[in-house]
Amino acid sequence: MRIDDLDTPCLVIDEALALANIAAMARACADAGVALRPHAKTHKSLLFSQAQMDAGAVGLTCAKVSEAERVAPAGSSVFVAYQVLGEGKRRRLAALRERNDVITGVDSAHAIAEAALVGTRANPLPVRIEVDTGTHRTGVSPAEVPSLAVQIGRCPTLRLDGLYSFEGHVYNSSSAAERERIARDAVALLVEASRAITSDWEALARSVGATPAVPYYLRAAGATELRPGAYVFMDANQVSLGAYWEQCAATVLATVVSTPTESRAVVDAGTKTLAADGVPRGKVARVLGHNLWVTRASEEHGIIECKGDHGLSVGQRVRLVPWHVCPVVNLADRFALLAPDSGVRWCPVDGRGCSA
Amino acid sequence: MRIDDLDTPCLVIDEALALANIAAMARACADAGVALRPHAKTHKSLLFSQAQMDAGAVGLTCAKVSEAERVAPAGSSVFVAYQVLGEGKRRRLAALRERNDVITGVDSAHAIAEAALVGTRANPLPVRIEVDTGTHRTGVSPAEVPSLAVQIGRCPTLRLDGLYSFEGHVYNSSSAAERERIARDAVALLVEASRAITSDWEALARSVGATPAVPYYLRAAGATELRPGAYVFMDANQVSLGAYWEQCAATVLATVVSTPTESRAVVDAGTKTLAADGVPRGKVARVLGHNLWVTRASEEHGIIECKGDHGLSVGQRVRLVPWHVCPVVNLADRFALLAPDSGVRWCPVDGRGCSA
Repeated sequence: MRIDDLDTPCLVIDEALALANIAAMARACADAGVALRPHAKTHKSLLFSQAQMDAGAVGLTCAKVSEAERVAPAGSSVFVAYQVLGEGKRRRLAALRERNDVITGVDSAHAIAEAALVGTRANPLPVRIEVDTGTHRTGVSPAEVPSLAVQIGRCPTLRLDGLYSFEGHVYNSSSAAERERIARDAVALLVEASRAITSDWEALARSVGATPAVPYYLRAAGATELRPGAYVFMDANQVSLGAYWEQCAATVLATVVSTPTESRAVVDAGTKTLAADGVPRGKVARVLGHNLWVTRASEEHGIIECKGDHGLSVGQRVRLVPWHVCPVVNLADRFALLAPDSGVRWCPVDGRGCSA
Repeated sequence: MRIDDLDTPCLVIDEALALANIAAMARACADAGVALRPHAKTHKSLLFSQAQMDAGAVGLTCAKVSEAERVAPAGSSVFVAYQVLGEGKRRRLAALRERNDVITGVDSAHAIAEAALVGTRANPLPVRIEVDTGTHRTGVSPAEVPSLAVQIGRCPTLRLDGLYSFEGHVYNSSSAAERERIARDAVALLVEASRAITSDWEALARSVGATPAVPYYLRAAGATELRPGAYVFMDANQVSLGAYWEQCAATVLATVVSTPTESRAVVDAGTKTLAADGVPRGKVARVLGHNLWVTRASEEHGIIECKGDHGLSVGQRVRLVPWHVCPVVNLADRFALLAPDSGVRWCPVDGRGCSA
């Protein structure tokens, strides 16, 4: 099967580019002596989580238990970087522990109490305390860490594995200097909070996230582990934060269905294919090889608007680099894996829709 | 199975509310003597397309051929309100015609030429010309309609069935008066464009879309057919445009996973469950029974922020009315159909992800 045989819209992953991104991140972490635990939320694919493990990752990160069930290679270490609550999820987490080494996140007495029901005295559940380093989502302030550590210490079915944070606010940064500051501050906070718990603080994991902050995490010694996700495929958002178009491995193949005016063309990929998650005004997706963007989109229409002449014609196929790749992959049941010779083969998005 | 047994996040559809919405729309159209051809893009479910047909719809509307393949009841009339291009789709459309009466949309000479390859002399393909009534997406200006009609007339494998439009710009309206003007203008444009084609213009379909414009389409005599989609479930966006919270049949059941501050709580449903499509600032989803909104979301976190005290606790379950329901349903492989006694049963989202 060739790329020309694909019906549109269709998610296409360039295998060589994705593997190069995986290798480059593994090398950067190895050189810095920091563990890499990639977040599977971007690819949601066993194929790529295995490739990340083969390249030297210490394990995987997953957002949810159901995601871990589908995309963690058997035997691998999996950090479910989330509060696991409710009887149904606790049961699934216990089952997951039969084939994977599992770590989970906690940020409240309630979450600690529920996690304690999953671990056993013979096999305590390792937990990490989530620290809010500025994203203001979940996580506790550094000042609250010691009290949670004490609570964990009182549970014989739990083991305190370390601290973690996610620097989502780096996506709102406007300069490399600001990204550097965010990364340095986060690492410093985790180090400080670790020291406040125990004199043996160096043994605790200090795990940080977010692809655009990676170069700065690595320079700010003190993090023991990185959890980037988007780096595997990159996207227009990552390019806006320092990556390169040449690294973008995920594109949506689309067909021009209408050219109502010289300055407006419409493709058959809208928000049900390209997603609308976090997209800034006018930048739903970049049209590869053309100086054009999908500037707005409805569910099944991507609208390319420009100042001059778009130069596209009805029936023409284009490849689009989405703004934010993670939700795009999650919309697709499968992707076409593109080889250097333009041959393609279908691969499932194993963890698609796994948000439970 | 009861609603309390569901793991979260989970899409829950209140069956009685959805059926009431279906009945009300069918009644309004019947009273006005206008045909109803609901858009299946919202529910993507054979269960609900069958319910719409049972309530008196003349047929269905689908955005794409793959959607029609999955959600159109056998034997029903289906309008694929899209330009069907490419050999693969033409083949699928021809196959679909073996079990359904199919109509498609065209807005260019290229689309007409491709459609002509699907119809046969013995069984011409009915086509409708898409007219841009102000959304500025696909569709031709009313002035271009006659020339397309002539082109269609020259193809013995096609039959001109009528005109259609979609008033997407009604979603940007700020008053009922503006919605009325948009609806009246659209209907008037289709009537005028029909008259420009043929003296037998009354025999042509004049089909308009968009749920919030429905009351005004019905008053502005001249449309022969309505294609609303979102009315089946309603959502916070529809409420902002005149619908009622009591009509909202689709909710996402979620669990509070963290309460970092008195004014911030976090649920386990983010943009991978609630979607981010068209969401205005601060209104990702409304928390049912609380005076609260999910004000921002990342992929797996919905963040509820308020001025005072949210009053929620970790582990508590809430039901969320999404801003825009169509992409929310498309994210779910299945939904829990809720009966009045709080019993639930699983139903597939048959057309999930069908954008080809």
